[in-house]
Formats: sequence, structure tokens, C-alpha cells
Amino acid sequence: MKIGIVGLGLIGGSLGIDLRSQGHHVIGISRQESTCKLAIAKGIADRVDTNFIALSDAEIIIVCTPINAIAPTIKQMIPHLNPSTIITDVGSVKCPIVKTCSQLWANFIGGHPMAGTAASGIDAALPNLFVDAAYVFTPTVESKPESVAKLKAIALDLNAMPHVCDARVHDRAVSWISHLPVMVSASLIKACLQEEPDTLKSAQILASSGFRDTSRVGGGNPELGVMMAKYNREELLRSLYIYRDNLNEVINIIEQENWDCLEQALRINGEVRPRFLN
Amino acid sequence: MKIGIVGLGLIGGSLGIDLRSQGHHVIGISRQESTCKLAIAKGIADRVDTNFIALSDAEIIIVCTPINAIAPTIKQMIPHLNPSTIITDVGSVKCPIVKTCSQLWANFIGGHPMAGTAASGIDAALPNLFVDAAYVFTPTVESKPESVAKLKAIALDLNAMPHVCDARVHDRAVSWISHLPVMVSASLIKACLQEEPDTLKSAQILASSGFRDTSRVGGGNPELGVMMAKYNREELLRSLYIYRDNLNEVINIIEQENWDCLEQALRINGEVRPRFLN
Repeated sequence: MKIGIVGLGLIGGSLGIDLRSQGHHVIGISRQESTCKLAIAKGIADRVDTNFIALSDAEIIIVCTPINAIAPTIKQMIPHLNPSTIITDVGSVKCPIVKTCSQLWANFIGGHPMAGTAASGIDAALPNLFVDAAYVFTPTVESKPESVAKLKAIALDLNAMPHVCDARVHDRAVSWISHLPVMVSASLIKACLQEEPDTLKSAQILASSGFRDTSRVGGGNPELGVMMAKYNREELLRSLYIYRDNLNEVINIIEQENWDCLEQALRINGEVRPRFLN
Repeated sequence: MKIGIVGLGLIGGSLGIDLRSQGHHVIGISRQESTCKLAIAKGIADRVDTNFIALSDAEIIIVCTPINAIAPTIKQMIPHLNPSTIITDVGSVKCPIVKTCSQLWANFIGGHPMAGTAASGIDAALPNLFVDAAYVFTPTVESKPESVAKLKAIALDLNAMPHVCDARVHDRAVSWISHLPVMVSASLIKACLQEEPDTLKSAQILASSGFRDTSRVGGGNPELGVMMAKYNREELLRSLYIYRDNLNEVINIIEQENWDCLEQALRINGEVRPRFLN
């Protein structure tokens, strides 16, 4: 299939490598000539261009720009496209994107491959990034079933696990498992910094895997954290309020020295956590 | 040196393996015959006993029982010991233990090797568990410098990094980097369980490394979590209150859509987090 990839960073670049290895013809688009050249050198695309005109014969276009650039990018490419082209994106929030982009292009279907690394940019692109990862698609009632089927086939080509759900369910679910953890973890690092210097120094010396893991996503890419909060604000605040209630409950339990209750809560946690680990 | 290890679980067993490999003579004590036999089979101890009388010629005794059993265990072994014996423990909280045990035995010095795995019991014991880990000792003003020196040498034999500090500084520091993360992480899993079943199901399908890491310590050993909270309650509550204030600040920033402020906070987090990772 002829597949256009717009934005050749970590996700776009990694998609290109794997889709080419599956026999697809990949057209890579970047605003920068230097990125286009690298994409050819790294085997990310069969042909590259800085102009959207190169997408005129693409059957599927995957927009891999940052969230705030998705709709403006689609607007710019529309004049050059074949009306049957399917457009999808890889943004980590779906409701606002699907709402705007479906109005711009009838054959738009939201997508979100749940994979990534701490790195970004074309140099971070690597093969097999999506193996065993969930790849969510959020069609609307007006989406064509054959378009959804084509996108699911692409996900399977990547050895990812396609999952179709409503954009609202997606946004609520990712708030719990991705966006809320970032804020919970960020608040932990932020809180530690309130400690006086000598104790903080000891804490830094003593910190090991527990702190490393719990603080990881709160010390990640700041722009990405802001994008999550900005585009999924409503769902993130909802989950933050519920989180705060549960934190207060844990604080109350400890204040009241209700150790049986704490042990039971921790035991339930240990039992249910494996359901979140595939 | 003749070293007694009382309690042959993950920590006691792993200490035995490494201390023997450094040429020390290890006397293993367990209440259970079956554990004693396993300790010999696994190379954890040179000789084993269920009776404290076997410790009469030990120069150093490391008490590796759960926190609540440390003082009662020391009380029981005292009649059998040589007065010059150094006693230390491996409990994750130091103030209450040091206070009680120093009164029981003048040559007691609190210890805390900052290492572990999710597993427990003698079957989980393994070599090199303490390599590059911090090993804290918390002497009092009355502790003998030569006893501290001997314990630091033991830590170096394990390829761990000895760190001497006040018991109070230890308890405050571990609250930040170990006990608070458990409660922050536990509240995250607990909060997710408030979601209605369909969305929760999607969340479980979509969860990946971010959720896995942030929820890890909150889904761990319930007894250990309760012990931390019980024995380090005052410091844990102090850090939980400061954490709650910082969480509320993050919530306020998102409510007010103050994206510059959020980006700055996340950027600072990313800059300071490496100081906690050795």
C-alpha cells in the first residue's frame, strides 16, 4: 500500500521503518530538507518531500506531528489529496482531534499507538517499536468500516494489537493510565524539593529503584506533559480529583493508625495491578 | 570474622551468600529447622541453629527479622552473647529501633541496606544483591567508633556504599524516597478502581510502561507497606502533607490553564531527577 507519513520524529520514523519492512511504499514528509535526507539514509521512507503534493497518490496518511499541529497540517494538505485517502493521526488525546479533523476530512479516523521511548526526533526512530503495544483507533458512527479495517491491518503489520473504542472512552482511559501518572509522579519530585538541603542530600544518596520508577514519568518531556494536560484537561482533572480523594483516604487511614484497613487496601492493589500489565 | 545472621529471608540469606564468599564464617539462625537446612544447601551459612546459643562466639550479629520482631529477638539472644558482640539490624526505619535496641544492648548500631527485590523468603536470596546499593548506619553519640568502622568494612565487603547518618535524618530521607512513593503509588491504583467497569477495562488494555512503573511500589508487599507506615508514621505523614500541597498546586495550575507554569515545573523535575539516580 502507498502510505504517507507526515512528521518524521520518533513515532513517524519508527512507523516508516516497520511499514517498509512489511512491503509498503512509504512517502515521508518533513518541513526540513535535512530530516528528509536522514529519512532516506535511515530506511524510513522510499521517497521524501517537503511538499504535501507528494501525498497525492497515498492511500493512507499518518499524521505524526505534535498534537497542536495535527489539524493545521491536515488543513494544508487537503488541496493535494485524492478524496478516497484515509487520514489518521498518532496523538495521545482523541476527542478534540477527532472532532476538528473529521470536519476537515470525512475519511479521518483517530489513532493512537501506545508506544514510545524517552527520546524524540528522527534519530530516536527504531524498528519494532510497536510490537505487542496497543494501537487504538477511535472511529465515529460516520466512519467507513472498510477504512477502519485497513487501519487495523496496518496495526497488525506492525505486530501491534489494534483496539477500537470511542474517543471519549480512550481519553478517559489514557488519563488514568498515562496522564494522571505523569502528574502524580511530577508532584512527588516537586514535593521532595521542599525538603531542607541536608536531608534532601541524604534522600538523593539513599534513593534506589522505588524512587526511580515512581518518579520516571514525572521527570519526562515537559512539552508532552503540557500537551496532555491541555488537550485532555477535563478528563485529567476528573481523575486528579478522584486521585486526591483516594490519597486523602490513605492519609486518614495512617492518621488513625487503622493498620488492618491499610493492609487490606495494599493487598487489593497487589491483586488488581497485574490486570494492567499485559 | 564470625558473623551471626538471625532471620534467613531475602536480606539475611543474600547477606550470608556474599559474606561467606568474602571469607567470613557465617552462623545462620532461623526458628525453623527446614529453613536451616535450606541455608546450608544454598551456601548461605557455614553452620546453622534454631537456638541463639550458637551465637555465643559471634563478633557481629545482623538481625534480619521483620521490624516488629527486632527488639524481641535481641532480648531473647542477650543471655547467650559475649559482651563485646556488635549487634546491627536491617530494618527500613531507624529511630524507634535504635531507641529500643540501644537500651537493650550498648553495642547496638542501626543498619539499613537499601536493596531488595519484589520477592521474599529464603528462596529469594541471591548473590550480589547489595552491589552499588547504599548501606546506612545510624550510630548514636554513645556508639564506639571501632564498631562503626567494622560495620562499614562489612558493607564494603558486600560492594555496597556505606553511609553514616543520624537515625532521624535516615527516617526523614527514606520517607521521601521510599515510604512516600509507596503511598503515592498505592493511591494511584486505588483511584483507578473507582472507574466504571467498561472504561477500567479499556484502561487495563491500554496501560503500558508509564503505568507499570508508577504503580509498581504501590502493588508490592502489603505487610512491608504497613510496617513502614506504622514505624515511620510521623515522618510519612509529614511528607504526605507536603506531597498533598504540591499535588493541589499542580491541580490549580491545570484548572487555571497556566501552561507556562506547568511546563516550568516539569522542566525543573527533569533537571533535578538525575540527582536521585546513582
